[in-house]
Amino acid sequence: MAKSKFEYVRLFESEDRCLPNTWIVVRVDGKGFHKFSAEHNYEKPNDIRSLSLMTHAATSVMEEFKDICLAYGQSDEYSFIFRKETQAYSRRSSKLSTNVCSLFTSAFVYHWSEHFPTISKPLYPPVFDGRTVLYPSDQNMRDYLSWRQADCHINNLYNTTFWTLIQKAGMSPNEAEKILKGTLSGDKNEILFSQFGINYNNEPEMFRKGTLLVRRRVPVPLPNGGTREKSQIIQQYADVIGDEFWKENSHLLASSS
Amino acid sequence: MAKSKFEYVRLFESEDRCLPNTWIVVRVDGKGFHKFSAEHNYEKPNDIRSLSLMTHAATSVMEEFKDICLAYGQSDEYSFIFRKETQAYSRRSSKLSTNVCSLFTSAFVYHWSEHFPTISKPLYPPVFDGRTVLYPSDQNMRDYLSWRQADCHINNLYNTTFWTLIQKAGMSPNEAEKILKGTLSGDKNEILFSQFGINYNNEPEMFRKGTLLVRRRVPVPLPNGGTREKSQIIQQYADVIGDEFWKENSHLLASSS
Amino acid sequence: MAKSKFEYVRLFESEDRCLPNTWIVVRVDGKGFHKFSAEHNYEKPNDIRSLSLMTHAATSVMEEFKDICLAYGQSDEYSFIFRKETQAYSRRSSKLSTNVCSLFTSAFVYHWSEHFPTISKPLYPPVFDGRTVLYPSDQNMRDYLSWRQADCHINNLYNTTFWTLIQKAGMSPNEAEKILKGTLSGDKNEILFSQFGINYNNEPEMFRKGTLLVRRRVPVPLPNGGTREKSQIIQQYADVIGDEFWKENSHLLASSS
Amino acid sequence: MAKSKFEYVRLFESEDRCLPNTWIVVRVDGKGFHKFSAEHNYEKPNDIRSLSLMTHAATSVMEEFKDICLAYGQSDEYSFIFRKETQAYSRRSSKLSTNVCSLFTSAFVYHWSEHFPTISKPLYPPVFDGRTVLYPSDQNMRDYLSWRQADCHINNLYNTTFWTLIQKAGMSPNEAEKILKGTLSGDKNEILFSQFGINYNNEPEMFRKGTLLVRRRVPVPLPNGGTREKSQIIQQYADVIGDEFWKENSHLLASSS
Repeated sequence: MAKSKFEYVRLFESEDRCLPNTWIVVRVDGKGFHKFSAEHNYEKPNDIRSLSLMTHAATSVMEEFKDICLAYGQSDEYSFIFRKETQAYSRRSSKLSTNVCSLFTSAFVYHWSEHFPTISKPLYPPVFDGRTVLYPSDQNMRDYLSWRQADCHINNLYNTTFWTLIQKAGMSPNEAEKILKGTLSGDKNEILFSQFGINYNNEPEMFRKGTLLVRRRVPVPLPNGGTREKSQIIQQYADVIGDEFWKENSHLLASSS
Repeated sequence: MAKSKFEYVRLFESEDRCLPNTWIVVRVDGKGFHKFSAEHNYEKPNDIRSLSLMTHAATSVMEEFKDICLAYGQSDEYSFIFRKETQAYSRRSSKLSTNVCSLFTSAFVYHWSEHFPTISKPLYPPVFDGRTVLYPSDQNMRDYLSWRQADCHINNLYNTTFWTLIQKAGMSPNEAEKILKGTLSGDKNEILFSQFGINYNNEPEMFRKGTLLVRRRVPVPLPNGGTREKSQIIQQYADVIGDEFWKENSHLLASSS
Repeated sequence: MAKSKFEYVRLFESEDRCLPNTWIVVRVDGKGFHKFSAEHNYEKPNDIRSLSLMTHAATSVMEEFKDICLAYGQSDEYSFIFRKETQAYSRRSSKLSTNVCSLFTSAFVYHWSEHFPTISKPLYPPVFDGRTVLYPSDQNMRDYLSWRQADCHINNLYNTTFWTLIQKAGMSPNEAEKILKGTLSGDKNEILFSQFGINYNNEPEMFRKGTLLVRRRVPVPLPNGGTREKSQIIQQYADVIGDEFWKENSHLLASSS
Repeated sequence: MAKSKFEYVRLFESEDRCLPNTWIVVRVDGKGFHKFSAEHNYEKPNDIRSLSLMTHAATSVMEEFKDICLAYGQSDEYSFIFRKETQAYSRRSSKLSTNVCSLFTSAFVYHWSEHFPTISKPLYPPVFDGRTVLYPSDQNMRDYLSWRQADCHINNLYNTTFWTLIQKAGMSPNEAEKILKGTLSGDKNEILFSQFGINYNNEPEMFRKGTLLVRRRVPVPLPNGGTREKSQIIQQYADVIGDEFWKENSHLLASSS
């Protein structure tokens, strides 16, 4: 069998190494999840089962890729931040995005029943797409996360008000939509508080801020009374737009150049 | 919330549209499947459950992406051929590879128990990577498929002989490896035939040639006695290296320019 | 001197190899030549000195790059067609475009005075930009050339009529523009013929069709009475939109796959 | 004329925008200048006419591209640093490299006779290639310049010793090469000093360090006795490896993020 005769087709593969010394972000996004969530009767405005399954899948990804220092998730999306110096898959863009995307999807289906115990399996296989984006400076990477968190805030405030009008005031989706058209954040806060006694700031942080997974070295006690450091993935709902999170997690940005 | 302040980070996304009028191949490959197959006691040299699950997952991909005209699978890999003119995802390379890869993975986990009825679920979430490769001419695309099928042939002949030596002659893997070192195809055929009475050419075509999924228009009878054409995905184990398959499936290559 | 300490910066260079088995077109375009031609009093609508200088520079490029099989020029632009199989500069896109562009520019300045004998040198250094475009099929590459030649035809018919109205009928540019606004090709032909007795089809082919440089093997007589083949660059003003040129130059398209 | 029929070929052009907020370096390199310099009898080890012509051409480039804040040249190469925020040509890589490369080449040929008054024009058109490289951090960009300046130092020390052995000690090139084989910097300094009384550190800085072109705002006196700031290109031979130059030119690195 003349293997070599066809081997030439490998030369058509193109290189796609990411620029060195640059933050690599891989974001996975649910495909058609508006429909998927409706078909699986997701609770509105937030389904805690779905969010915990998303975070479970994201944790699987972080356990596999040690160079992901931070992940951020909200709604049907999760972003993974590889440290600037990573050499994972020689920084090949398509290798990174397809591996992260496949593992995330796989873990999502695999762990489904642990989070949706009353639905033995999804009605059909869910799909996530993936993309790789590069950010040269720490500020750009922080602004990326701020962009996603601001998006979370805006959507969640809207959805919370929208579904409260439907669930508590008995409105139709059309009526609720009409009322919210053109409103600012302050207006929505006011509707929630004055009409329903809801202080938006008391809503669960997971809904308002999304979920952060931070890799951190934590001390572990040893039998001899001493301690050793161990890398752990910590889940939290912090604000990433302000400076405080970054001061407390200065190890995330500390790099050689 | 100053949404616009962070919105600029979208400008860091790069375009990756595939060259027009070019065959787009997306190949998914099992990650660490040597280990995965051992841990799940795959039958050797071929596990028909695994192959049928792979083909099930590939069929899900073809049902979703109507512009995939042909798929070819063997071992733990599957290649999907998008027709030259496809505008799926505006031909964006990373969109195509991550969507195909995610759906394939998702369907693989989702349909697992239908193919492995005695193993309720895999021990852990399996992963596939994905890549996009472009082929400008029909001949290049055919040579790509020939490359994969020649690879299938070479590996399967080796594995068939290797596992026969172990399973039927009671050799250790080391002993079998030593015997096969440096042998040509003819030598392996001879070992199989003279020592074990096995005519390699009578081995199942699915093992020797891999699996083709071809999209084809087939006539469907109508109540009124007439027929209409319907697109169907046909599974077969043909030789793609020779010309016959391509003559019988000339619709695959027929395109405007 | 710690050379190695800084050497790492070479890793930031990215690969840009062109897809194999694909036509590579490098086009150079004059930058700001509307102004440049006015400042150097180019004759209107066509300055034969400029066109011959452009072709001189293009010939220098073809003499250097043996894998350019065809070049086409009009106005202040020239396109160079590398044969599909070229391995020049390992098909690196930026190497091809910058080398072609630099040599073209260099030859243009170098040979200036041979074509503009009354202007010893340009008023300032002229600039050309360059780009690389890939075309997978022969038809795509032919259509590229047809696009450029159609562009030449449209512009030249317009310019010929425009400048005739100015030069022969004493109109101002504004008046000529107003008359031509919204006219079709037939209208312009009619203006030229009925008002000025000019049959556009009798205008020089170089102006109407642009210039082709074709690499061709021609027989060269030997002292012993025999002949040998020699590669030569032939200048002609053929139509590349129809089939005739391609039939007469079938060697340009004849390639392995 | 069916223009639209061919217009589709424009879709085959690919986008190549440089990552935002990243230093863009365009380097032009003489092609075959070993031969070119020999054929034009360049003085050895350095020809001040050639270096001043290179710097003249580089200055033309900087006058055209206001977003080049710094250029560095040595031997037959020049590097141009665009500021991180530049939007020149929408940051399209091939536009930047071909325009810089063409203008540099054009100016080199155009101004030749001003620097080589005894050679009316070169024997043939010289060529420079160009490439674009991205550097995400200030340190990476500084290290790039350090790499080029270290290269200048190493080559110039070698060439100075090599040509001194030939020109002052009457050696053949082969003999000089043999003596220098395996020597370190200290050895070459010692040869120059002990055998020829040459203190390498007293050699012209332009030869030892290469040429920097820095864009700087300088005060210009006004008729009324006041001053206004004007952007100027300053030529100097500073060390870019240490910190001093960067402290004195802190405006080069000062940017928003």
